[in-house]
Amino acid sequence: MRYIFTLFFAFLLSFSGQSQSYIQDSITIRKLYNEALGNGRSYSLLDYLCNKIGPRLSGSTNAQIAVNWAQSQMNKYGFDRVYTQQVMVPHWTRGTKEVASFEEKGVVNFLQICALGGSIGTGYEGIRSKVIEVQNFEELRKLGVDTVRGKIIFFNRPMDPTKINTFEAYSGAVNQRSNGAIEAAKLGALGVIVRSMTLSIDRYPHTGAMRYDPNINKIPAAAISTKDADFLSKRLKANPNLNFHFRMMCDTLPDAKSYNVIGEVLGYEKPEEIIVVGGHLDSWDLGTGAHDDGAGCVQAMEALRLFKVLGIRPKRTIRVVLFMNEENGLRGGVEYAKQAKELEQTHIAAVESDAGGFTPRGFGIVGSPEKEAIIKSWIPLLAPYGLQDIAAGHGGADIGPLKEQGAVLLGLSPDSQRYFDYHHAATDKFDSVNKRELELGAAALASMLYLLSQYGL
Amino acid sequence: MRYIFTLFFAFLLSFSGQSQSYIQDSITIRKLYNEALGNGRSYSLLDYLCNKIGPRLSGSTNAQIAVNWAQSQMNKYGFDRVYTQQVMVPHWTRGTKEVASFEEKGVVNFLQICALGGSIGTGYEGIRSKVIEVQNFEELRKLGVDTVRGKIIFFNRPMDPTKINTFEAYSGAVNQRSNGAIEAAKLGALGVIVRSMTLSIDRYPHTGAMRYDPNINKIPAAAISTKDADFLSKRLKANPNLNFHFRMMCDTLPDAKSYNVIGEVLGYEKPEEIIVVGGHLDSWDLGTGAHDDGAGCVQAMEALRLFKVLGIRPKRTIRVVLFMNEENGLRGGVEYAKQAKELEQTHIAAVESDAGGFTPRGFGIVGSPEKEAIIKSWIPLLAPYGLQDIAAGHGGADIGPLKEQGAVLLGLSPDSQRYFDYHHAATDKFDSVNKRELELGAAALASMLYLLSQYGL
Repeated sequence: MRYIFTLFFAFLLSFSGQSQSYIQDSITIRKLYNEALGNGRSYSLLDYLCNKIGPRLSGSTNAQIAVNWAQSQMNKYGFDRVYTQQVMVPHWTRGTKEVASFEEKGVVNFLQICALGGSIGTGYEGIRSKVIEVQNFEELRKLGVDTVRGKIIFFNRPMDPTKINTFEAYSGAVNQRSNGAIEAAKLGALGVIVRSMTLSIDRYPHTGAMRYDPNINKIPAAAISTKDADFLSKRLKANPNLNFHFRMMCDTLPDAKSYNVIGEVLGYEKPEEIIVVGGHLDSWDLGTGAHDDGAGCVQAMEALRLFKVLGIRPKRTIRVVLFMNEENGLRGGVEYAKQAKELEQTHIAAVESDAGGFTPRGFGIVGSPEKEAIIKSWIPLLAPYGLQDIAAGHGGADIGPLKEQGAVLLGLSPDSQRYFDYHHAATDKFDSVNKRELELGAAALASMLYLLSQYGL
Repeated sequence: MRYIFTLFFAFLLSFSGQSQSYIQDSITIRKLYNEALGNGRSYSLLDYLCNKIGPRLSGSTNAQIAVNWAQSQMNKYGFDRVYTQQVMVPHWTRGTKEVASFEEKGVVNFLQICALGGSIGTGYEGIRSKVIEVQNFEELRKLGVDTVRGKIIFFNRPMDPTKINTFEAYSGAVNQRSNGAIEAAKLGALGVIVRSMTLSIDRYPHTGAMRYDPNINKIPAAAISTKDADFLSKRLKANPNLNFHFRMMCDTLPDAKSYNVIGEVLGYEKPEEIIVVGGHLDSWDLGTGAHDDGAGCVQAMEALRLFKVLGIRPKRTIRVVLFMNEENGLRGGVEYAKQAKELEQTHIAAVESDAGGFTPRGFGIVGSPEKEAIIKSWIPLLAPYGLQDIAAGHGGADIGPLKEQGAVLLGLSPDSQRYFDYHHAATDKFDSVNKRELELGAAALASMLYLLSQYGL
């Protein structure tokens, strides 16, 4: 209901004596969309990033190639200043393809698993033990040390398909992946297998970050595809004592040198007021990081290119930041905010696109009610482009650390239905991205940047 | 702006002393969504329809298989009454795969074309002539008889990519396909080649209905893929005299006997008031009619199944109608309305899903302002499910003839960005449909049917 009032207020605000600028703004936004949809570059950029460079795990050679490429692209676009910002990142490697199986009645059943990011390996012999399936940590704790010790814990609580926004379903399940190894190790488990974080029932395991507690024994943690999770669960019901085996050769190397990539166009009126737009350049290694977050990177670059090519000079400085290491460390986002603080820079807003290259439906806002109201007053300008959901919500992981410096955070919010089909899996490839949907996101970012740079906060 | 007021009024209306029923309605709608997303059948139905039956061109054997299948499905769901309604339909056949080429400097360039639905064939020898490219009928007419006579006219006006709603872009280009052959034949052309109606640049030709004028000479009409259209256009600029050849073995057979398939659940309070929900069972022959309109058919069947399985009895009669022959004749829609009139049935509303199985965003309404206002008063119940765009708009082709009998028409309105990538092309296959997006459409239909049956109009 609040939504209705919000829209109504937005409508009133937007017409309180600013109809001249309203018309000018609507013309500018139309131009941004025309260029993005009629002559956009985001799709071909993404093609290159995914198909010519490929996966970009932090610390990998590919990640460094992507850094060089992004810098050279932004130079080609003629931004005022293009530079990098050094940051040390975790360097985790998957090693050879993981293997998992169980034997039943003389038949070996192979299952699709992958190591979770940050997991220790199992050694070449792997781990072989009985499996105990649980739905959550409470159920696990009730089993107690005597039952869990020496076993493999299988976390199999699915994402809830009845949530309309799939990110809510993700939030409701992802603690199994992030904290499962800690909770299981507390009770003496040998390893954990976690149902993949996806609503799709298929054979692709979905990786993602997991954590260890420095005070708790580290045990290997894998994701298992949803189809294999269902199969394993079924077989466990018939035979609770089946012997499971898995091998993962993943390893963590010393931290590696890497970079955030930055390109900016200076504001002509208040250059000292900075508006960041970005995504993260690193990706998981199974796919090619198309939706997560190649899309956000090319949309951010495209958004600023639209200003350049259309000759729209921003009143405030717009800075594209392609963050390194969102997936397994957030080092780039933390380092960027740290340097911004040291340099006493003023960030009025930061906009992130990291929810996939799907049809955009609005922006999530993290900021004071007053600043939120200013942004909502722009809804009449943005709603004709399908951007109706502009309300308090999620900003973005990389830009999160800028919040304490007073920046309002904005997260581009695309349609969420397909995101977790691809998220962190081998399916997150270029061909899973639709050209127009991607371009609409770039135009949405550009429109928001234009309004932020025009009016400040 | 009207949108904002509308939402505000909807908000006021919805709380004027009906909060008890509002709560009950919101609970029922939540149940419909839970079942559709958690335990839905639409996706597996569509799998069967596309992958086990396949394309369903009017008059084809497959279309008859689909009729039988749909009837048996609805019987399985235990609807009160399941029956068919005979209708004679055009029986056009494509024949062997079309061939098109031009020769330049001794090199033969083959192009991807397909016959437009309803076109005459070229004979085995095909048609060979010079090509004249035009963007529209005005340009064509300016060329005059002397220039056009004996040539092949190449209509190459693209859909406008800057339209946010792709159906608008389609409307702005489709007269080339539907009327191109008539306009070119008036000036003595031998045949027409029409740029495919899609925003995607690829090598898939998109078929679709074309018309002849009984007083104008019939000439063959083909669609050419966008990539080949661009290539041909480029070569024509370099060499306006290049000789083009195409062969199409399509043919029109005598009208065939076919059927609408109907299944209904009787209203317990006003069974005489009928609410139709439907899609069209026929499809073009190049793909397997997944989005167009297998999606609509399975969503309509699923919507009524949700009522059955959840034990929700509708106050008014809900009738699933799977129409035959929307693509090239609309005979099913016309026949259904004719029989409804003869039987003096009262249709208060008809809801169609024929814009693809994508994330639904609302409904288009065709009806009096008063009835439109009633439907809009339900927005607060539907907006939490992403159904915000509920306003005057497009209903549906098949249900169109019911309008004159006083039925309000409603068209499910999904996100339009990807639709024309698949529309009428070989790419319109099962794997182009996302399970959740399809299910959300079924739940949206069911929710609208529930409110219509509960409150009438």
